[in-house]
Amino acid sequence: MSLNSIFQYFVPKDKKVFFPLFEQAATNVVAMANKLVEAVNTVNPEAREEMYAQIDKLENIGDEITHQIYLELSKNFITPFDREDIAQLASAIDDVADYINGSAGRMLLYKVDNITDSIKKLSDMVLDGSIVMEKAIKELSDMNNVRSIADSCVRINSIENQADDVFDRAVADLFLYEKDAIKLIKYKEVLANLETATDKCEDVANVLETILVKNA
Amino acid sequence: MSLNSIFQYFVPKDKKVFFPLFEQAATNVVAMANKLVEAVNTVNPEAREEMYAQIDKLENIGDEITHQIYLELSKNFITPFDREDIAQLASAIDDVADYINGSAGRMLLYKVDNITDSIKKLSDMVLDGSIVMEKAIKELSDMNNVRSIADSCVRINSIENQADDVFDRAVADLFLYEKDAIKLIKYKEVLANLETATDKCEDVANVLETILVKNA
Amino acid sequence: MSLNSIFQYFVPKDKKVFFPLFEQAATNVVAMANKLVEAVNTVNPEAREEMYAQIDKLENIGDEITHQIYLELSKNFITPFDREDIAQLASAIDDVADYINGSAGRMLLYKVDNITDSIKKLSDMVLDGSIVMEKAIKELSDMNNVRSIADSCVRINSIENQADDVFDRAVADLFLYEKDAIKLIKYKEVLANLETATDKCEDVANVLETILVKNA
Repeated sequence: MSLNSIFQYFVPKDKKVFFPLFEQAATNVVAMANKLVEAVNTVNPEAREEMYAQIDKLENIGDEITHQIYLELSKNFITPFDREDIAQLASAIDDVADYINGSAGRMLLYKVDNITDSIKKLSDMVLDGSIVMEKAIKELSDMNNVRSIADSCVRINSIENQADDVFDRAVADLFLYEKDAIKLIKYKEVLANLETATDKCEDVANVLETILVKNA
Repeated sequence: MSLNSIFQYFVPKDKKVFFPLFEQAATNVVAMANKLVEAVNTVNPEAREEMYAQIDKLENIGDEITHQIYLELSKNFITPFDREDIAQLASAIDDVADYINGSAGRMLLYKVDNITDSIKKLSDMVLDGSIVMEKAIKELSDMNNVRSIADSCVRINSIENQADDVFDRAVADLFLYEKDAIKLIKYKEVLANLETATDKCEDVANVLETILVKNA
Repeated sequence: MSLNSIFQYFVPKDKKVFFPLFEQAATNVVAMANKLVEAVNTVNPEAREEMYAQIDKLENIGDEITHQIYLELSKNFITPFDREDIAQLASAIDDVADYINGSAGRMLLYKVDNITDSIKKLSDMVLDGSIVMEKAIKELSDMNNVRSIADSCVRINSIENQADDVFDRAVADLFLYEKDAIKLIKYKEVLANLETATDKCEDVANVLETILVKNA
């Protein structure tokens, strides 16, 4: 227990600074994931490249929000929950954004023009995970929502498990059927980035669960 | 020094919660490593697949133990040593388990049927490192064991160095002799996962050394 | 705010232990980066291998300095800035060293004899980033240097962005022109290690910025 936790008992928690920033960060991730799903379902390669560029711009915005959270953390003596949990939550949301952008960036860089079903499926799962994550984070400012936040965490874990299975199946198929090693490397990396994005949603869920246990 | 460390001076340390969980986690890793060595020395591919499935099940059990440690950490005001060291120790042991399972999972996924000498050697080293790690963790509840724990840490570091050499040699050989790029990718990843498992044993040793210095 | 931060107000900060160690660690990284640039510009393969071996030796020295910082952190009640920032700064500098050595080690292991322009460019950037990092760390002992340290952090971020672009361009070219998958794997890994070394310089800059905000 930190000094901070002790002060919490007699100083009103200032939620006004951190919660809006977390919501902005989560909403930004959902915008990125939406753009990703749009991109992998677009038949026009030029339109798709434009969407990848938009994802990259959104990722920069996300970086600024994360930076802002760290700045506030350095300046604020009183925080709505433990300092290390705030830092980890910010970092975990930022990681989801990084891996969404990493997936898009690799498809652009490697000129992946044949968007496979596995890529589409995993992109959908990244979007699903991001939406549930945003919902949970919006509810975080009110500890009456504990039940609902916990449910969201369970759903995120379940999405991650499904993404694992899709990834394993897709990579096994690559090794079975893709005889061009360079193509195999490209697709494997794109799939791994998408799957890791759902892992990072699960990391967000883990931080949320820690916060619930400490504050419930 | 945390508030927690100060309270340690006048509140009896409750070791009953954390030490049994750490021992369970370490013993579970040894069970996984034993099963891995058994699998890579089995000639029957079906029996081997069954062992990989058992490793995966053990990894789930390990996840639950780790989760339990975090839960206890959230609930307990007094801990036997610094909170961040408990969290890092739990996470480091969990990482060893993850990489053992990752090695097995890749051999299964990539249908690696030709188990090379390097894979067998590295699997043996993962088991050696896990056994020494388990020994050190069992001794952690009694600070009279400082000398013996420190010796175990030195042994783990030495195992990791040897694993590094085996890995480097094996990968250099792959690049020299393996002309099939797809096979090269498969074997390189399996070897890297095994070698990283010994790195993670070393991370456990590093956390143990930190705990010794603080509490000796 | 930690207990430690409160004690800072009435206990003289002991800077004599940590700052010299951080400077040694940073100077050691610059020595490694210098040796790397020398190696990739050497035409004699044997001389180059000798330089890689020297980089590896320097990395061991760096490990010892890092270990020393952790030891001091465990022993000292009073630290010149927050304990977690000291640990993170030490770890971030160590990571730069690891990736410089990782780059050299892979070129050695994979027998990369054709040193491309991208490898040379990225090595130069690793050296630039390391030099600016060393400058910032040397200035850290005097909080009158805040402006100058902040400028160095901006420069490190800018170097990292440029390294990103060089890396992306080089990898896109590999996928366009390199038809030998095994060569592609080798070069891609070397480039990735070099680029990650500049990422790790940026991590150092991020820790420095956190320290500035807290202590300015």
